Amino acid sequence: MRALEFEQKSVCATTAARRGQIQTGHGSIETPVFMPVGTVGSVKGIAPWTLKALGAEIILGNTYHLHLRPGEARVEALGGLQEFTAWQGPMLTDSGGFQVFSLAQLNQISEEGVKFQSHVDGSHRFLSPETSMDIQNRLGADIVMAFDQCPPATATREEVIAATDRTTRWLDRCISAFKRDDQALFGIVQGGLHEDLRLAHVEALAARDLPGYALGGFSVGEAPSVMVDLLQRVTPALPADKPRYLMGVGTPRDLVEAVAAGIDMFDCVLPTRNGRMGTVFTSEGRLNIKNARFADDRGPLDPACPCRTCTTYSRAYLRHLFITKELLGLSALTEHNLFYYLDLMRRIREAITAERFPQLLDEVRSLWPLKA
Amino acid sequence: MRALEFEQKSVCATTAARRGQIQTGHGSIETPVFMPVGTVGSVKGIAPWTLKALGAEIILGNTYHLHLRPGEARVEALGGLQEFTAWQGPMLTDSGGFQVFSLAQLNQISEEGVKFQSHVDGSHRFLSPETSMDIQNRLGADIVMAFDQCPPATATREEVIAATDRTTRWLDRCISAFKRDDQALFGIVQGGLHEDLRLAHVEALAARDLPGYALGGFSVGEAPSVMVDLLQRVTPALPADKPRYLMGVGTPRDLVEAVAAGIDMFDCVLPTRNGRMGTVFTSEGRLNIKNARFADDRGPLDPACPCRTCTTYSRAYLRHLFITKELLGLSALTEHNLFYYLDLMRRIREAITAERFPQLLDEVRSLWPLKA
Repeated sequence: MRALEFEQKSVCATTAARRGQIQTGHGSIETPVFMPVGTVGSVKGIAPWTLKALGAEIILGNTYHLHLRPGEARVEALGGLQEFTAWQGPMLTDSGGFQVFSLAQLNQISEEGVKFQSHVDGSHRFLSPETSMDIQNRLGADIVMAFDQCPPATATREEVIAATDRTTRWLDRCISAFKRDDQALFGIVQGGLHEDLRLAHVEALAARDLPGYALGGFSVGEAPSVMVDLLQRVTPALPADKPRYLMGVGTPRDLVEAVAAGIDMFDCVLPTRNGRMGTVFTSEGRLNIKNARFADDRGPLDPACPCRTCTTYSRAYLRHLFITKELLGLSALTEHNLFYYLDLMRRIREAITAERFPQLLDEVRSLWPLKA
Repeated sequence: MRALEFEQKSVCATTAARRGQIQTGHGSIETPVFMPVGTVGSVKGIAPWTLKALGAEIILGNTYHLHLRPGEARVEALGGLQEFTAWQGPMLTDSGGFQVFSLAQLNQISEEGVKFQSHVDGSHRFLSPETSMDIQNRLGADIVMAFDQCPPATATREEVIAATDRTTRWLDRCISAFKRDDQALFGIVQGGLHEDLRLAHVEALAARDLPGYALGGFSVGEAPSVMVDLLQRVTPALPADKPRYLMGVGTPRDLVEAVAAGIDMFDCVLPTRNGRMGTVFTSEGRLNIKNARFADDRGPLDPACPCRTCTTYSRAYLRHLFITKELLGLSALTEHNLFYYLDLMRRIREAITAERFPQLLDEVRSLWPLKA
């Protein structure tokens, strides 16, 4: 068996949505799938048995963070990322590139790689296609991402072209440096908001016949409608027999739009980060539990939700937990939001199989307006 | 039925240890019992279903904190403390006295009560036997504590006498003000480290024929051996047919010593607070997970422990969670420590029934030396 097998199981007759299954060495994943983000090897506040019970099938870890702490050598010596984090299922690591550009103090970007300073201790570090592959090989996730250059939202067309070309050259260095045949390396399509650059990059990457492809550089400040338009034109050009991953996206509305465009995989910090800020996704829209109007509200967060948070606690109690800064509030709202996201993906998969995905798309569109 | 029934089921032939059962309107409690502390209505980081699974039978809430946020009127309107916190079992509230003396900015203590400023917002507040009873009646816990005056560890004998006498007068006002017959009011014995004052106060309180009695004013700075000596002489004087509660104590060693003296109930923040600080109680003694020697340790926190934390995570991973300040570390160590305490109480109860409590006492004494 190859490190990763993808099987397309059913397709929507109206949209480009498709249901499939990914087989990895640590188990199978039903797609379209949402991957909770476990930055340093832990989905903040949520135990692995809870992730399992919520229906999570694959967890993302961040190479940048894990490289800084505890370091890939330690994770490798401790048996790899799954053994280390006690998550028994499939995992994916990103390349570290996005965090180097967004979190670290950047010192220098060159053809060789990126010099930066750690946001933890200011130490000088270097990340390149080769070091990213080495780190990810040692971390040992099932899916590994190529080291790419994600240009800022403000980049000119010329800068985007330069970053896209470099990303292709870096991909070839990733392929050469990549060492493990029980891991699958995905390439990342860049090209900013330029349809022609995106399509050209898709073509360049598809020629490498990788086990999967991601779209990077979305949700970096552009209007959601711009992203959705572009996804509809670019996604179908990606190889149909490989999983397609839209990185770092998004809202519930973004997810259904991207599925309609043919995307199979998602990761995003929204459900977890928003949960810790007191904001939840519900069948009635978004709400922030800290709002004073919930102080005496005996009802659940979301009357339609069967999750443990909604069947156990009142809004009044959850608000009290946030006002008094109790830890339990953070995990309770995070758990609800993850349930919401994972349940939305379940509903999407079932709707595709039952040939009613367009109806679900309409339903989600009416609840979650696309922001301007 | 009265608000609370206590039945003594077996006694140790060698020590004053006893096993019993308390029946409340929200269920029964096997004694000796440890009550996890849920200060503002939540045991920090631990969901009620986890508390249940750990074997917790009764949770403590703090009147001082709940009075400040969310306020007793709100808790009452929301159905009382159990309904509000989603804890389905028995609960106990303290009187607020201890926190007023330790946490708040004290303005004035008089025969009428205590004027203080909230540590949350500086607002001016007043707590007295009558207001404490009113607050606790509205909160609605199964067991309610009398409002007492706990003298500081540095108090002179004359000051201790004055505080003890006032505590008796305040108890009578508590009894008069107390309104609900589905709650049980416990009296609190004071008297500092003076055996004669303690015994005299026991006699004064026993005359009130209350459903239970607590020993207050211990573990406030005295040497543990001094506390244990005094407990051995004072506890047997408490009515044998009522539950005996040692407030705010203590270490595993303190618990077995107090059980040997005849105590039935305990509460303490040690397992929860220490867990959040990275310190755990194990079958091999105490350890702090932040210690560098655990960085590559694949073993569990406690090799002899069957709790979820010990059967799921390595010390290396738990240390990583603390070093990176991940929420999961706080709840994982808290859960282990609560398991340790609740399991110790199970072992104590079983040992009393099986007539081998003295052996367990020796075992715990050799693992946990009494600090000087």
